[in-house]
Amino acid sequence: MQASFTVHYGLRCAAGEDPQEKARGIALEQTVELPAACLREDIADTWVGRIQQLQPAADGRWQCSIRYDARLAGGELTQLLNTLFGNISLKSGIRVEGVDWPEELLGAFGGPGHGITGLRRLTEVPEGLPLTCTALKPVGYTARELANLAYRFALGGVDIIKDDHGLADQPSAPFRERLSACQAAVERANRETGGSSRYFPNVTAPVHLLEERLLAARNAGCRGVLISPWLCGLDSLRWARDRSGLALMAHPALTGGQMGGEHGLTPALLLGELFRLAGADASIYPNTGGRFGFSEATCRQINDALRRPLGALLPAAPTPGGGMDARSAPHWIERYGPDTIVLIGGSLYAQGDITAAARGLLQALGRD
Amino acid sequence: MQASFTVHYGLRCAAGEDPQEKARGIALEQTVELPAACLREDIADTWVGRIQQLQPAADGRWQCSIRYDARLAGGELTQLLNTLFGNISLKSGIRVEGVDWPEELLGAFGGPGHGITGLRRLTEVPEGLPLTCTALKPVGYTARELANLAYRFALGGVDIIKDDHGLADQPSAPFRERLSACQAAVERANRETGGSSRYFPNVTAPVHLLEERLLAARNAGCRGVLISPWLCGLDSLRWARDRSGLALMAHPALTGGQMGGEHGLTPALLLGELFRLAGADASIYPNTGGRFGFSEATCRQINDALRRPLGALLPAAPTPGGGMDARSAPHWIERYGPDTIVLIGGSLYAQGDITAAARGLLQALGRD
Repeated sequence: MQASFTVHYGLRCAAGEDPQEKARGIALEQTVELPAACLREDIADTWVGRIQQLQPAADGRWQCSIRYDARLAGGELTQLLNTLFGNISLKSGIRVEGVDWPEELLGAFGGPGHGITGLRRLTEVPEGLPLTCTALKPVGYTARELANLAYRFALGGVDIIKDDHGLADQPSAPFRERLSACQAAVERANRETGGSSRYFPNVTAPVHLLEERLLAARNAGCRGVLISPWLCGLDSLRWARDRSGLALMAHPALTGGQMGGEHGLTPALLLGELFRLAGADASIYPNTGGRFGFSEATCRQINDALRRPLGALLPAAPTPGGGMDARSAPHWIERYGPDTIVLIGGSLYAQGDITAAARGLLQALGRD
Repeated sequence: MQASFTVHYGLRCAAGEDPQEKARGIALEQTVELPAACLREDIADTWVGRIQQLQPAADGRWQCSIRYDARLAGGELTQLLNTLFGNISLKSGIRVEGVDWPEELLGAFGGPGHGITGLRRLTEVPEGLPLTCTALKPVGYTARELANLAYRFALGGVDIIKDDHGLADQPSAPFRERLSACQAAVERANRETGGSSRYFPNVTAPVHLLEERLLAARNAGCRGVLISPWLCGLDSLRWARDRSGLALMAHPALTGGQMGGEHGLTPALLLGELFRLAGADASIYPNTGGRFGFSEATCRQINDALRRPLGALLPAAPTPGGGMDARSAPHWIERYGPDTIVLIGGSLYAQGDITAAARGLLQALGRD
């Protein structure tokens, strides 16, 4: 029996649209891209998706499950994404809600290289306590100014001090200069405090520069990096893991348009399962109540997708952020559990003395 | 005066949402990611987006234009995308409708390496006549079977015979094997007919294989390739252009979820301007009336974005496809003009004798 993966869809049929036909359309569109009448029997039997289930859901939509031959994905994340939502992204009323992964695909893509446990090891945060993260910003600051912020955050004990995802290679703080200044600043603070803060530079970059930035980060002594998989392509995560061995924190930039509605991928599938499958050790998402619009239920689904048992894949760390108030951090850890990274930016900056603000945050989280 | 680019948005305000605040939110979110109160004056003056215009539109939405310092994009397509729709993709009711590009950015990204004129040159199709394109499929066929199709399409005179975008490196027809078989088949047909059909293999691939596939295609004698920029990352287009010199046909796989609604990018911006800017010589989109849902007005906007004067960028070829009937091709050329590539797949296959079907298509388009 050939390995297969089953994709679960929520379908919204337009007036006059037949759910059976819509499901059949997906099974053809995502595989052979030909009308059934043009297909040889062996191709139809082997390669066309098989509708396993199609039934009405409570909200007027239809639940549909289609099984695909695992060879369709060709062992490549680019083609896996294509199979999940390539051409049907151009249709409407199709939400990809989940995937039953066979061991073959999980093994081929491999998941996190470090996982939550690895992140704990490199930041020396014991089990049972949450990790903290903040962002260096704004764009426009010089490398020296950003390094100064990094130093002060590290003095305050923040575990992961990452570049803001909008810091690329702007002339105000070019990547190389920022990398060495910020890494040196965090190392200096660690020497002074005996702490283990880590600087994660943003390596999101054009194709020809991604490798250079990754290796520069590793050579500078960084233990992890930030990357935006939707800007670089999802496979950049897997490749960065394999090429650099660094811990990877994924940023959701550009993913939003494809999530959350009745057409697209669910946040749990995209920011949870797919990012984890591709190698994210931590996945940033906009927590409920911040500047963005996820519900708490959605956030919990992302957490679950990142941490639940999934073949031999390591659990990855949910990293809620996006305008969270520092004072609410203990509340969210209580709700989401300690295997979480609390990402707080603006709310620390707003307190003026960011070292004191960071210390306060750690204290509130039982980290002192 | 520092170079800048202006982005035009259509905003849909939720109940109680203030348009001024929404616009201001975008200007901060896409730049400094800090509340205005946390910003030094020089940063606020230089780096935060400047609202140039904000006025109610006829449909209850708001038209908003924000000007950004061109240095924000850092000369990189990854960061340009981030600036256009990175974090705000996670909000709602924001449609990015257009960009006023400064020469600096157009020059930095460069656009098509061949353009329509270059595609005409390599297929020997004179000015004033449209080009034709078809796709090799279905997945599941062996390299030999696909090559046989390529041969028969080439005998019929189809100009560009591309892999279906779902053909990656599946075991049924591995990339290398398919590449040599299909390229040889098209060359053989060309020798027999004296024609100039071209085989464009699909090079969409994981990061570490993209270069290998591009160069393999070039070494095999191909003059162009197919690539899905949303699967590989937008910058893969620019990089493929610079690294290989091959003509690039872009496929819209995975773009759909972010287009066409009140939140996202417009099809003309994404499949037109951005793909062209990044280096696409041809951009495939789903024509109206086929399996997907674009209106004719949307298709015309894409055509315009690909062909209109834009700095020194070459015009790229609109490539309507997606379930078009061969019989309707002359109609669409009449409407879209001859600087168009007609992409017809299933409708040729459905005729059984694909060589005769292709000849019929060319005849109908005045290409005999």
